[in-house]
Amino acid sequence: MLNCAVIGATGYTGMELIKILLKHSYVRISALTTRQKEALPVQTLIPSLPKDIDLVIRPHSFVELKKSSDLFFLCLPHTEAMETVEKLRGAGKIVIDLSADFRLKDASAYEFWYGVKHRNTARIQEAVYGLTEFFRDSIRGAKLIANPGCYPTGAALGIVPLLRDGLVEKEGIIIDSKSGVSGAGKKLSLSSHFAELDENFYAYKVGQHQHTPEIEQTLSWASGRKTAVSFTPHLLPLKRGILSTIYLRRKKGVTQERIEQSFRKAYDKEPFVRFKGAKQFPALKDVQQTNYCDIGFHFDARTDQLIVVTAIDNLLKGASGQAVQNMNVCLGFPEQEGLGLW
Amino acid sequence: MLNCAVIGATGYTGMELIKILLKHSYVRISALTTRQKEALPVQTLIPSLPKDIDLVIRPHSFVELKKSSDLFFLCLPHTEAMETVEKLRGAGKIVIDLSADFRLKDASAYEFWYGVKHRNTARIQEAVYGLTEFFRDSIRGAKLIANPGCYPTGAALGIVPLLRDGLVEKEGIIIDSKSGVSGAGKKLSLSSHFAELDENFYAYKVGQHQHTPEIEQTLSWASGRKTAVSFTPHLLPLKRGILSTIYLRRKKGVTQERIEQSFRKAYDKEPFVRFKGAKQFPALKDVQQTNYCDIGFHFDARTDQLIVVTAIDNLLKGASGQAVQNMNVCLGFPEQEGLGLW
Amino acid sequence: MLNCAVIGATGYTGMELIKILLKHSYVRISALTTRQKEALPVQTLIPSLPKDIDLVIRPHSFVELKKSSDLFFLCLPHTEAMETVEKLRGAGKIVIDLSADFRLKDASAYEFWYGVKHRNTARIQEAVYGLTEFFRDSIRGAKLIANPGCYPTGAALGIVPLLRDGLVEKEGIIIDSKSGVSGAGKKLSLSSHFAELDENFYAYKVGQHQHTPEIEQTLSWASGRKTAVSFTPHLLPLKRGILSTIYLRRKKGVTQERIEQSFRKAYDKEPFVRFKGAKQFPALKDVQQTNYCDIGFHFDARTDQLIVVTAIDNLLKGASGQAVQNMNVCLGFPEQEGLGLW
Amino acid sequence: MLNCAVIGATGYTGMELIKILLKHSYVRISALTTRQKEALPVQTLIPSLPKDIDLVIRPHSFVELKKSSDLFFLCLPHTEAMETVEKLRGAGKIVIDLSADFRLKDASAYEFWYGVKHRNTARIQEAVYGLTEFFRDSIRGAKLIANPGCYPTGAALGIVPLLRDGLVEKEGIIIDSKSGVSGAGKKLSLSSHFAELDENFYAYKVGQHQHTPEIEQTLSWASGRKTAVSFTPHLLPLKRGILSTIYLRRKKGVTQERIEQSFRKAYDKEPFVRFKGAKQFPALKDVQQTNYCDIGFHFDARTDQLIVVTAIDNLLKGASGQAVQNMNVCLGFPEQEGLGLW
Repeated sequence: MLNCAVIGATGYTGMELIKILLKHSYVRISALTTRQKEALPVQTLIPSLPKDIDLVIRPHSFVELKKSSDLFFLCLPHTEAMETVEKLRGAGKIVIDLSADFRLKDASAYEFWYGVKHRNTARIQEAVYGLTEFFRDSIRGAKLIANPGCYPTGAALGIVPLLRDGLVEKEGIIIDSKSGVSGAGKKLSLSSHFAELDENFYAYKVGQHQHTPEIEQTLSWASGRKTAVSFTPHLLPLKRGILSTIYLRRKKGVTQERIEQSFRKAYDKEPFVRFKGAKQFPALKDVQQTNYCDIGFHFDARTDQLIVVTAIDNLLKGASGQAVQNMNVCLGFPEQEGLGLW
Repeated sequence: MLNCAVIGATGYTGMELIKILLKHSYVRISALTTRQKEALPVQTLIPSLPKDIDLVIRPHSFVELKKSSDLFFLCLPHTEAMETVEKLRGAGKIVIDLSADFRLKDASAYEFWYGVKHRNTARIQEAVYGLTEFFRDSIRGAKLIANPGCYPTGAALGIVPLLRDGLVEKEGIIIDSKSGVSGAGKKLSLSSHFAELDENFYAYKVGQHQHTPEIEQTLSWASGRKTAVSFTPHLLPLKRGILSTIYLRRKKGVTQERIEQSFRKAYDKEPFVRFKGAKQFPALKDVQQTNYCDIGFHFDARTDQLIVVTAIDNLLKGASGQAVQNMNVCLGFPEQEGLGLW
Repeated sequence: MLNCAVIGATGYTGMELIKILLKHSYVRISALTTRQKEALPVQTLIPSLPKDIDLVIRPHSFVELKKSSDLFFLCLPHTEAMETVEKLRGAGKIVIDLSADFRLKDASAYEFWYGVKHRNTARIQEAVYGLTEFFRDSIRGAKLIANPGCYPTGAALGIVPLLRDGLVEKEGIIIDSKSGVSGAGKKLSLSSHFAELDENFYAYKVGQHQHTPEIEQTLSWASGRKTAVSFTPHLLPLKRGILSTIYLRRKKGVTQERIEQSFRKAYDKEPFVRFKGAKQFPALKDVQQTNYCDIGFHFDARTDQLIVVTAIDNLLKGASGQAVQNMNVCLGFPEQEGLGLW
Repeated sequence: MLNCAVIGATGYTGMELIKILLKHSYVRISALTTRQKEALPVQTLIPSLPKDIDLVIRPHSFVELKKSSDLFFLCLPHTEAMETVEKLRGAGKIVIDLSADFRLKDASAYEFWYGVKHRNTARIQEAVYGLTEFFRDSIRGAKLIANPGCYPTGAALGIVPLLRDGLVEKEGIIIDSKSGVSGAGKKLSLSSHFAELDENFYAYKVGQHQHTPEIEQTLSWASGRKTAVSFTPHLLPLKRGILSTIYLRRKKGVTQERIEQSFRKAYDKEPFVRFKGAKQFPALKDVQQTNYCDIGFHFDARTDQLIVVTAIDNLLKGASGQAVQNMNVCLGFPEQEGLGLW
């Protein structure tokens, strides 16, 4: 049994991690930490848990953590993760970081989009980007995994195979994403106040969202050339899920069949991607509470646009689910362990 | 006082028309019709109405209608409107048709997208397309007004000024729209069953929605050349409103200021369009229960994409509100009459 | 034209007051105040308002207010209203106070249930309780109106006629109320965080809600004897409306017809109460965005329980709508002015 | 491995059964039936299921079913279950019937409340009422289990211990329940049309709901005397969950401690009931997607009312979860098997 700690366990990604790890056959939860002073039984945070689970979320000293735990899930805000990663890696621990701090290989891009100085550029090189489907080989045995953002996961899974196979243009990629509100976390704000968001819908950070460079980094890797995207996130009046509608320009002569083949080749053996085929589109309800990414597409011959739609649960495949999937790959556990039937 | 009839008054657009006409100073409701056999007091349909309003929805013979009413709002399903329009126009009545039957000037496009034969092509030429902001002059004194579809209204208002002023390319126009469920009407279906749609979100009729040719007709008129669009509608788990995120390719050298000028010139004097300026985006809650179209935009210099976002209430500016706006223009009433403060 | 000020205009009740007063034929808005430092155009607060309305919310000195305004709507938190009322009344102004500070005639009950000292008991006697339907005569010409709470309005309208007519017992009255979240105001809290309340439902402050003594005060007045109630509020995952299910013990021999007569006598001439009759029940959607209270009932012969259900919009009949209704009565304006068609 | 069939597998309770049985270690799904003609892969019905699950829902002949399956879950509408039960029991099969057909021991009560003749009164005596917590001994080895209704489960669990221990009066019991819309099933109706229910809330079948005699049967058993209740169901604008607010009259001298003891004695060893204690109240979100019933209470000394609040997931503890719990008890499997961590 592997001893796992969740650092910053009181947010929504922490809650999901706890629920998954409790179902996992090869790990035990060795520590759940919070910056709040009082200890709280895990049922206070997640009242749906069985009453006989005996876990407490509380402050832990680094000395305690070093002793009790071997692998750490970091659910800290961006910029706070940097130092904690350093400490844990210094002590030889395996770290799966759910923050954005080690996702971008280009520190200056981080500084531009996040508006803060990167104070631990040394570890950036060590970090493996945890988009499991494309970087599985590097994830095996990795020591520091930068778990992908929610929007970048849904976007990249819909585009990478086509770019890699040279079926679509690198120019003019448009990603129109719609996210449930849990993506914004547990922090109170007027925009997630029930009376403001209920029955409402709007675009935000248009062309300026900090996940843009992360998407572009993956697409540039796939296409072999610097690839820019136009990315527009929207806020949905629901709890969980991201649906991304992606517009791509078909390369001349590429057929619908060729597109299908590309997706099938990429995903037929993937346990957590379900390609639905041409003119079949995913719905958020089909992926909520699961680690799946569902993908469908339409080839619009009238305009030469290819429209790909992907759906994920932002807290699972978009965060905690993929984090555990990465742990499984990293340590050689069966990839679906803990992530099976909802 | 003008005598107005609402034909097919029991659906959602009929309900909204009744509510508006009751507030209108220059009209009286002379008939509310239904195909159902029993008469029903208007409060049975719209329980929120004051108890002292004495109106009944019931079957009416054409003879009665001819006598009682001068102007007719038609809230009939597509293809049913054709014959009723003929009868009413034959009797010299003014008709505002909320169906799609007379919107497309090209009957073959109608037949292709709606999958039925057009049986009254003669009246197509008489019909004026009622997108008030652009066709006000023709609407004045018109006898048959084809009231625009909900998606086409939100889309065209965000694009026409820029195309007309030659600021964006005619190619590669993408319209990603998200609609509340009242747009699908009162007809029962699994897709609008509460337990299926609640917390759900998805794209439908991708690249195949029947509003596509209506949008293209208006954009072709604006650009002076055949203009195709890629149009993807989505269903939102909320009652009212359509938000459209529109992607346009900037023409070389066009600045953000030039875009702003174009919108201001088009809309500064419009009573029902509110241009919010650069980097200011509309939200559905700001237009729900109003006849407004709100518009914002972002110019993404990194990708040369112009992103325009528009929001309307699909039942008001997208249907019944615009129908009354058109009646006001047609007959010389003040344009805002009946459509002021919710 | 009467000059009206709204003190504390940035909350939900302030917003509704502004929307109503703009439609009112006999008043003009002379001041909208906030404690925030920057002035904000009213459209920033209420983006749905027409763009040509020229009103600004900003801090106002008492000297300014005294000069500019004759009647004041107070939308201040409980306990803050006390001193402002004193100042305004000292200057001879008419005050309609939407807080709880002057609703309870018994200051010690106020202190018990609200947990704070009452610092202006002198004005309590001057205050008229503004449940319009029952206290219309005292409201006429009143100088200080204590506008009722939202729960007490919906509860009292369903019970008072029956108690007054001696048809039900004073003992064992149970009020099970369910409220939309706007009742909790604009203040951020985890309980009104979208991801926490969406799809959720629960009871709160069971047997301990501060509106309990206000309900009991009205019922005691109606029955002529001290009358206690068991009151359980619940939070609904929706924006507006309170539905109260009220359980009363029928007095021996009282028939269904007698109950109906009592309600009809009380409400047939009331402009804002709609009694629906036996076995006809109200729904929140029928009263949302209106100043109505809808009432239905069932007499359960098997258990001798009378079940009365009432529905109101908590922001209108439960707050700002009733406040304007009270102003209309107080000053002799037509009672429905400003409150007509949504 | 026990061979289990689900008869009528395409509704919401069928879906939940499939999901639970797939996780169950001691059963395999041997048949999933529908009256529709075409076979459909289980993923068409439940798209969230893993793609490699190979199950098909299709019509099955009785001969096939007799051969393939040993235990049958019946998810048929009321009155349709009667004959199927007869056939299956005639063949010696174990049946867990989720319909109401065998819940009431008194066939005349069935006929009164359901408005149809009972055509299989012989089997009523054989049937064991499956409220697991109270009838566990009879459920062991039973051949025909009448699985309780959703409302009766939540109501009985909150009242039985107190009645059994003689702490509350048999008179004046009031149950005010609020249910999510999945309780009404998958059948289309205007009342579950999204645009009608969204943001809405109302009471229905007040004093006339068919679950009333089922609740009364259990309470009469607990109190040892005929016990009537006043039961008011309401419809919530959310998918899953029933919250019941129960009003009981305390017997003279009974203390809060005595109430707590009664609940603790009844439920401390129950795997699926979580008693939260005095002044601690359940929320729907804490029981959704679980088989738990959460219970809290408040003793209102001012009015001598005891207010008990219970919460369940109507599709799990209120239907399919309890059905599997009953199967586990019946056949000696661990009671929590298949029902553990969501």
